[in-house]
Amino acid sequence: MPTDDDITTVPDGTDIAGPKADALEALARLFGDRFSRAQAVRTHHANSITWHKPELPDAVIFPLSVDEVQQAVRICSAAALPIIAYGSGTSLEGQINASFGGVTFDLSRMNNIIAINAEDLDCEVEAGVTRLQLNSDLRDKGLFFPIDPGADTTIGGMAATRASGTNAVRYGTMRENVVSVTAVLANGTLIKTGNRARKSSAGYDLTRLLVGSEGTLAIITSVVVRLQGIPEKITAAVLPFETLDGACNTAIATIQLGLPIARIELIDEMQVKISNAYSRLSLAETPTLFVEFHGSEASVAEQVAQFREIAEEFGAQSFDMAEQPEDRSKLWQARHDTYWATSAWRPGSQVLTTDACVPISRLADCIAETRKDLDQHGLIGPIIGHIGDGNFHVTLLFDGDDAAEIAKVKAFVDRLSHRAVAMEGTCTGEHGIGQGKLVALLHELGPAVDVMRAIKRALDPKNIMNPGKIFHAVPAAAEGDHQ
Amino acid sequence: MPTDDDITTVPDGTDIAGPKADALEALARLFGDRFSRAQAVRTHHANSITWHKPELPDAVIFPLSVDEVQQAVRICSAAALPIIAYGSGTSLEGQINASFGGVTFDLSRMNNIIAINAEDLDCEVEAGVTRLQLNSDLRDKGLFFPIDPGADTTIGGMAATRASGTNAVRYGTMRENVVSVTAVLANGTLIKTGNRARKSSAGYDLTRLLVGSEGTLAIITSVVVRLQGIPEKITAAVLPFETLDGACNTAIATIQLGLPIARIELIDEMQVKISNAYSRLSLAETPTLFVEFHGSEASVAEQVAQFREIAEEFGAQSFDMAEQPEDRSKLWQARHDTYWATSAWRPGSQVLTTDACVPISRLADCIAETRKDLDQHGLIGPIIGHIGDGNFHVTLLFDGDDAAEIAKVKAFVDRLSHRAVAMEGTCTGEHGIGQGKLVALLHELGPAVDVMRAIKRALDPKNIMNPGKIFHAVPAAAEGDHQ
Repeated sequence: MPTDDDITTVPDGTDIAGPKADALEALARLFGDRFSRAQAVRTHHANSITWHKPELPDAVIFPLSVDEVQQAVRICSAAALPIIAYGSGTSLEGQINASFGGVTFDLSRMNNIIAINAEDLDCEVEAGVTRLQLNSDLRDKGLFFPIDPGADTTIGGMAATRASGTNAVRYGTMRENVVSVTAVLANGTLIKTGNRARKSSAGYDLTRLLVGSEGTLAIITSVVVRLQGIPEKITAAVLPFETLDGACNTAIATIQLGLPIARIELIDEMQVKISNAYSRLSLAETPTLFVEFHGSEASVAEQVAQFREIAEEFGAQSFDMAEQPEDRSKLWQARHDTYWATSAWRPGSQVLTTDACVPISRLADCIAETRKDLDQHGLIGPIIGHIGDGNFHVTLLFDGDDAAEIAKVKAFVDRLSHRAVAMEGTCTGEHGIGQGKLVALLHELGPAVDVMRAIKRALDPKNIMNPGKIFHAVPAAAEGDHQ
Repeated sequence: MPTDDDITTVPDGTDIAGPKADALEALARLFGDRFSRAQAVRTHHANSITWHKPELPDAVIFPLSVDEVQQAVRICSAAALPIIAYGSGTSLEGQINASFGGVTFDLSRMNNIIAINAEDLDCEVEAGVTRLQLNSDLRDKGLFFPIDPGADTTIGGMAATRASGTNAVRYGTMRENVVSVTAVLANGTLIKTGNRARKSSAGYDLTRLLVGSEGTLAIITSVVVRLQGIPEKITAAVLPFETLDGACNTAIATIQLGLPIARIELIDEMQVKISNAYSRLSLAETPTLFVEFHGSEASVAEQVAQFREIAEEFGAQSFDMAEQPEDRSKLWQARHDTYWATSAWRPGSQVLTTDACVPISRLADCIAETRKDLDQHGLIGPIIGHIGDGNFHVTLLFDGDDAAEIAKVKAFVDRLSHRAVAMEGTCTGEHGIGQGKLVALLHELGPAVDVMRAIKRALDPKNIMNPGKIFHAVPAAAEGDHQ
């Protein structure tokens, strides 16, 4: 009968004994030089672009096959050693931390593209394939995988955190773009949640249950994702606005009109200033939209005309087109570099990127109140957002050694979560719960979280799958409590 | 400790005693004339357009509020009385049958539209609101709810069966169009699976878990669904083809090209003949596509031009436009009446509508093999399909009193399921598992079905929520097995 104590190992890993030590030895034998307890390797795997303190695993393994994942899970399960799935380490809420020690499964070497079914607009990839790798392979087939969270994340990790990003306003998130997954359960069983049919009513939607489960229910080993044809025409543009409100209201009207815009990103005044410095841009330092349109020549022309009309109505000061691929790349690179730009703004600072998502009608209010909140509390926090989805991020800069400043930042994040929920939104549009939003999740969904816990207990009775994420450490299950 | 025997009641309900009788009495007191044990009422609620034999509940209640649903669930739970949620009774795989007796919760009187948030393109409705009722309310706001399974189903029932229909090729299924649900669990707890944000990473996707769970995990009491703006321009058309293959390949090429067609329905030669007779049409008796395009004037013109080119390449013999609303209505009414047309074709016959869904590249093969299979076995079965999704139906006509013919039909349905799965598809694209595809589900998803069972046991340890659906009767849980 495992207890929380059983799965709390000492981070430096020196005093592990008994079944856990035996399990680590078994893994060492099985994985050879793809098993490591080196401090540097363990530290690397607990380092992420997050404000959560790194918590090191006892060991890291690099499986090459589903079979190896299954064997390793069985070894860990027998010894109640926690299992942390790792893709590219770019999650933002401490999802890869080994809060109770255990073994990090680095899936980055499982990076085969299993099949590209161009005629069905889908493909199956191993969990460690990254989105840039996939898109590079797809390019000569005239196809692309649209989900773009910025970093070059693994598809498995993106599925596990229900990632989205700049293109979601048109193409959806991982929720809509994962067709099915193959995954290894806590007891080592391999399941496939579906085939390649576009739709299915065959039982519970386990695909969607595992998408966004943050490694707490199973390790995703391969993913079937939907693909899109590369549009005949792509046009991007930059629009500076007089006011934040004008930029937000342009997004709101665009969505309400049903205009199939492919990207509509807000960069607030402070972020423009920061990005100008970092990305050598010379944008007017005023709230700005980066937008992109996909379609046929005629359709893009129509979208641009409709959009310009809306934007001008809400105070767009200009509409600078980026039609050449290199101009578009520069634009989106600057957008994706906002995290690094902000980190560099006040060197030595701790960075916390948080997110919230509200119904589009509440977006302008939510952002305005959030800006006021930041200013009132003297916090440095540029705002960016995938605002066509009602989703925005605040990148907070603070002194990670100053307890008072940390407390102030945490209080702000709590207020932001509550504000979003009060506006019928969510405390996280795309970053997940991880370690950072456990309380916010309870506030947002209340008794529904008990249902999540019940599912967790049913599928992972020993609580070995990424324990301490999504939920506070779950009380151990009683012997024979689950089959 | 409940056992399967405990939840097997005698259909005529006369010899119920003990806690179950007490529970029925308590419900009678609570619901007054909205409680019925009348034979006619019970029979009505076990009658569906399905080949499964009606199995009557012990009683039917008509709740008016969430609170009443919760109270009734608590009463049923205490006595381990099965609970069957009922919307409009149009499910096709026996989902509403009371296999072990119990109480049918007819939710049709919970039919309030709670809120229409036009500016967010969503609305919240009670489970008993029907799609025609909702669309009638939405019309003057310039909005519509796109999911169209044919019958005037309730939104709650559509969510519970993960319904889709003719518009899914463009707008998605209930999986993509339900934003969140409110539901009552087996123990009477009310949960809300989310708010109204377009996307969320807040914990497990309970929305998608309940969508398609066929009443086996909870009773859905209200649903937030996405809405669409009524397109500026709608054009429908009818295209007769020389061959079935030509019609299928037109759909395949349309999807592969990424053309955002709103509807693309196959009506095979036999179905055209049947529908001509029933719906007083004069279509050429050859494989035919009914299609529809939504968008701006310019976009529809572009789509039509591209589509005609594809269709002509694959042998379309003509392209008859239906631009006027009344012409389009006539067309889609005929499509939606195919079930009734086929029923009337051989009066007195039993009708079984089955479905399968395959990756689009396999569609032509799957339909051709299925047609050959039908002909080889002397079965009457017109084929229709939402073929843009790779989804098609065979409407089998047979003598329900002839055991040999029933066996032949069942064997055909099994072969069809296996054929679809062998082509990386699914045994059901939109009708669900119900009572009819329990074995097919096991064949399709194997060990993943054990995961579904584990979830079922965790959320409904007494197995009172629509028992006998999706899974074979689940062995009862041990006392104290779940919290």
